[in-house]
Amino acid sequence: MEHRALLLLLLAFLTPGAPIPVPPALKALSNLHLSTRLTSRPAIDIKYSIHYIQQKVDHFGFNTDKTFKQRYLIADKHWKKDGGSILFYTGNEGDITWFCNNTGFMWDMAEELKAMLVFAEHRYYGESLPFGANSFKDSTHLNFLTSEQALADFAKLIKHLKRTVPGAKNQPVIALGGSYGGMLAAWFRMKYPHMVVGALASSAPIWQFEDLVPCGVFMEIVTADFRKSGPNCSESIRRSWDAIRRLTSTGPGLHWLSEALRLCSPLTNSQDVEHLKDWITETWVNLAMVDYPYESNFLQPLPAWPIKVVCQYLKNPNVSDPQLLENIFQALNVYYNYSGQVKCLNMSETATRSLGSLGWSYQACTEMVMPFCTNGIDDMFEPHSWNLKEFSDDCFKQWGVRPRPSWITTMYGGKNISSHTNIIFSNGDLDPWSGGGVTENVTDTLVAITIPEGAHHLDLRANNAFDPTSVLLARSLEVRYMKQWIKNFYASLRKKH
Amino acid sequence: MEHRALLLLLLAFLTPGAPIPVPPALKALSNLHLSTRLTSRPAIDIKYSIHYIQQKVDHFGFNTDKTFKQRYLIADKHWKKDGGSILFYTGNEGDITWFCNNTGFMWDMAEELKAMLVFAEHRYYGESLPFGANSFKDSTHLNFLTSEQALADFAKLIKHLKRTVPGAKNQPVIALGGSYGGMLAAWFRMKYPHMVVGALASSAPIWQFEDLVPCGVFMEIVTADFRKSGPNCSESIRRSWDAIRRLTSTGPGLHWLSEALRLCSPLTNSQDVEHLKDWITETWVNLAMVDYPYESNFLQPLPAWPIKVVCQYLKNPNVSDPQLLENIFQALNVYYNYSGQVKCLNMSETATRSLGSLGWSYQACTEMVMPFCTNGIDDMFEPHSWNLKEFSDDCFKQWGVRPRPSWITTMYGGKNISSHTNIIFSNGDLDPWSGGGVTENVTDTLVAITIPEGAHHLDLRANNAFDPTSVLLARSLEVRYMKQWIKNFYASLRKKH
Repeated sequence: MEHRALLLLLLAFLTPGAPIPVPPALKALSNLHLSTRLTSRPAIDIKYSIHYIQQKVDHFGFNTDKTFKQRYLIADKHWKKDGGSILFYTGNEGDITWFCNNTGFMWDMAEELKAMLVFAEHRYYGESLPFGANSFKDSTHLNFLTSEQALADFAKLIKHLKRTVPGAKNQPVIALGGSYGGMLAAWFRMKYPHMVVGALASSAPIWQFEDLVPCGVFMEIVTADFRKSGPNCSESIRRSWDAIRRLTSTGPGLHWLSEALRLCSPLTNSQDVEHLKDWITETWVNLAMVDYPYESNFLQPLPAWPIKVVCQYLKNPNVSDPQLLENIFQALNVYYNYSGQVKCLNMSETATRSLGSLGWSYQACTEMVMPFCTNGIDDMFEPHSWNLKEFSDDCFKQWGVRPRPSWITTMYGGKNISSHTNIIFSNGDLDPWSGGGVTENVTDTLVAITIPEGAHHLDLRANNAFDPTSVLLARSLEVRYMKQWIKNFYASLRKKH
Repeated sequence: MEHRALLLLLLAFLTPGAPIPVPPALKALSNLHLSTRLTSRPAIDIKYSIHYIQQKVDHFGFNTDKTFKQRYLIADKHWKKDGGSILFYTGNEGDITWFCNNTGFMWDMAEELKAMLVFAEHRYYGESLPFGANSFKDSTHLNFLTSEQALADFAKLIKHLKRTVPGAKNQPVIALGGSYGGMLAAWFRMKYPHMVVGALASSAPIWQFEDLVPCGVFMEIVTADFRKSGPNCSESIRRSWDAIRRLTSTGPGLHWLSEALRLCSPLTNSQDVEHLKDWITETWVNLAMVDYPYESNFLQPLPAWPIKVVCQYLKNPNVSDPQLLENIFQALNVYYNYSGQVKCLNMSETATRSLGSLGWSYQACTEMVMPFCTNGIDDMFEPHSWNLKEFSDDCFKQWGVRPRPSWITTMYGGKNISSHTNIIFSNGDLDPWSGGGVTENVTDTLVAITIPEGAHHLDLRANNAFDPTSVLLARSLEVRYMKQWIKNFYASLRKKH
């Protein structure tokens, strides 16, 4: 049990449909980066042009001169050649049009910053496939899917824009991104400070590596979200695992639970039960990430503060196992059936239609090795420890590569980043990823902004009437920093001339 | 003529013995990094231990997990665990024991800084061959010879030392290097500021790329060295090229000149004449780099201020062609026959026994694309323009790769480096490489130190009784900066605890 549970966590980022059986537990962790900013934006007209730049497949080796087309989007409605700026979204693991359409904050501040918006697609995602349909074929083709190559793409693109777009040459560029994209924004400023005057790294867990933070912090925050959202809520969930175990120890129990949870496919064996627990776990994790203060459309349409709604069904942990699971069903139903149209709950549909899950699962198996664990005491989940050896073996089976868990800290500095400047790290306290984020100022110019009522990169979402004051404050502070960077840029430009 | 001459410059870094015929002209440019710090050091006992670390062949891709042994040397006689420091030589294109034995400055200051000295060998040089004897076989094997991979090796090595050497963990590391090694030291601080508190980049031409500096500046400085070292000296050399052309336009002229220059192999055709001019050019370039104020042992033993000695034979440009070439012979003889033991001058022996010329020629054909040119007006050489297309074609013929001339500036920032901190750029005014170096302060912490009487990284050489005041001053300033970095490191360490 311990052993198997372990595996679930270890494979958190692995993709379904892969050669080895991969339970979907915490698959959400791999998808969180995506799909969390869906918002209809009637106020601002989202219009962009689509462009492509020829990029070297390998920036760091000369044996191949092969190139591929990287896609990027430009929106320049509010751009001013005189005193303007360039906001550069460092695309993460997904289709860039999706990020473009769902990073409302950039569209909201474009006019104020006289900014050109650029959204750069990350290689191996969306249309930017180095080897087309063969890009994910094997480890040879995947060899160029790294954060370093992605950053180099961004650098080349910015250079290209400055050379080819009249008026762009002497303008300050600011990197922005959320989640993995936020990590890239921060790292881009660290590694290519000559390219960008600063970076806004929203919900960027740059310390979710090695032992920089405790591996349990992520699930502890998920748990805290539920604990805070209703009396006994997290306790009810904590007790549900044993209840499931007891209920499913017999054939009739399996049948009963399948009915009680309105599962589309009935549970038939213990493997299904593990799958069930993974699926439920993933649901709670997803909810923690998108616990937004207003109705939003994530995987399914969700009410405002969805965890509060969920917790209304989980007020009493001291009930019979069947009653507890009935309550769990009601809670799950909030997430999967807010519309009321769903006939049964489909355990295989939980995963977001993440555009880049395949690519991310490779990245998690190489550079992006994020240890997660639970102990069942400080969190409401079954205990799973972190086992690098198993993780590595599984990665090798799936991709033919082994993770290098200490590489990211060697490359990007771990907690020793104080010599860098002009990076804003923003985090929502509700977001489990804040546990691996920078939530305290490192220096005067490496600043942390925390949003007590914020879930995953809430600040990057478009303005909303129901935004809590804390996120409005965060955004206004972020704009103030960016304006200062822009001002400093122009001041030093004038000094040069 | 113009066309061919061009080629010579383009191939400056290419190695002799390569598949395509490579004139040795300015080959010195590729070798300058080496062999210029030979000095006997009776005062300080050079004792080190030899170590090896297993490094990934490819830090930036996961398709191969192959490793190789990187060599490094440690000298810890003066190292103090309490309040000490680590001076880390970022090895350049050669055998690391050579650099270790010839960077006297590090040995001279070890005691004062309570420093452990570490000398890290650059991959593909010395014993640190990723594929052993096959390392230079083809572009596939050479694919991992880049500055980025070398910097990653250094980062991993420092991490390894901090983990494994008791007492090293909480000590400040300073990167030091000369020439290409100086570029690496500077770039290492830029890219891995979490690994080193600062860098001393001596004679590091980090701006000898693209159009950051005029391509002619290198040879202009060579010319200036000769102009300053004796009346009419550079003018005599300038006139020598036409004199050679006139003299060698006939068979008897070829014979006469072969005799006059005491050449071991007589000139027989126009190709030999081009070779001769390249060889002479290379000699003047070499002299400019090693125009040290005391007797030193470069390729050949040399007197103090060797250009002054050379120029004593080149006082009168207004003489007959034969007389001018007799004078040129006397001048060459200073360089090739200071000992008086040489029977004839060997045009193929000019090149330094550079340990890493093969590797460097590949690097020059990939990342290290340094444009050079002459116009015959601002310099004393025949006019050669810079032709990237031809250079690229030649590289492709030799190595099967094409240079990416703008990559280095994309990667390392070109002139836009002001956001970095704690780098000392030292340059000697006599050193032709100072033309591509940082010779004015960029900021308060990116400082330039110039040594008016200095040739190529004179400051890294051991103390010498004949050192001019300017280099003593430079070294003492360098030590002062390093002490400040060390002090700041310990101050911030104390603040943390």
